[in-house]
Amino acid sequence: MNRIKKICRKYLIHLQKSVFEGAVTEGQYHKLIGELRSIIDDKLDFVVVYTLPDGNKLNRTILTDTPDPADNLL
Amino acid sequence: MNRIKKICRKYLIHLQKSVFEGAVTEGQYHKLIGELRSIIDDKLDFVVVYTLPDGNKLNRTILTDTPDPADNLL
Repeated sequence: MNRIKKICRKYLIHLQKSVFEGAVTEGQYHKLIGELRSIIDDKLDFVVVYTLPDGNKLNRTILTDTPDPADNLL
Repeated sequence: MNRIKKICRKYLIHLQKSVFEGAVTEGQYHKLIGELRSIIDDKLDFVVVYTLPDGNKLNRTILTDTPDPADNLL
């Protein structure tokens, strides 16, 4: 799992445990996926990627007062 | 954290660790948020909710072969 985290941190913000988020270009997205595919264990790991096509909106609400790791970047 | 998981499981699919997903009605959403707000610790917990307004698309890709907990429900 640490190798997956290490790759994700190159492109995304580490939000919590196994959750990363961020805005990436098409090129960065394909590099990220390629790097992940080269190290993940198909039978043991469970990796889900959500992508929001341009023009689509996603609301993001934080229910707590704890600092938002993505705060100064988005 | 377990109390949060218990509430989330009533409305959503437990995908992984602290990640839940699902399709809920407006009413269910407000009930879920209300129940969560009543137990979360504002200073210690970090709870982020992503909502996709009607008409918006989200792509969901699984990079591994491991079973998808949401498989028979979505």
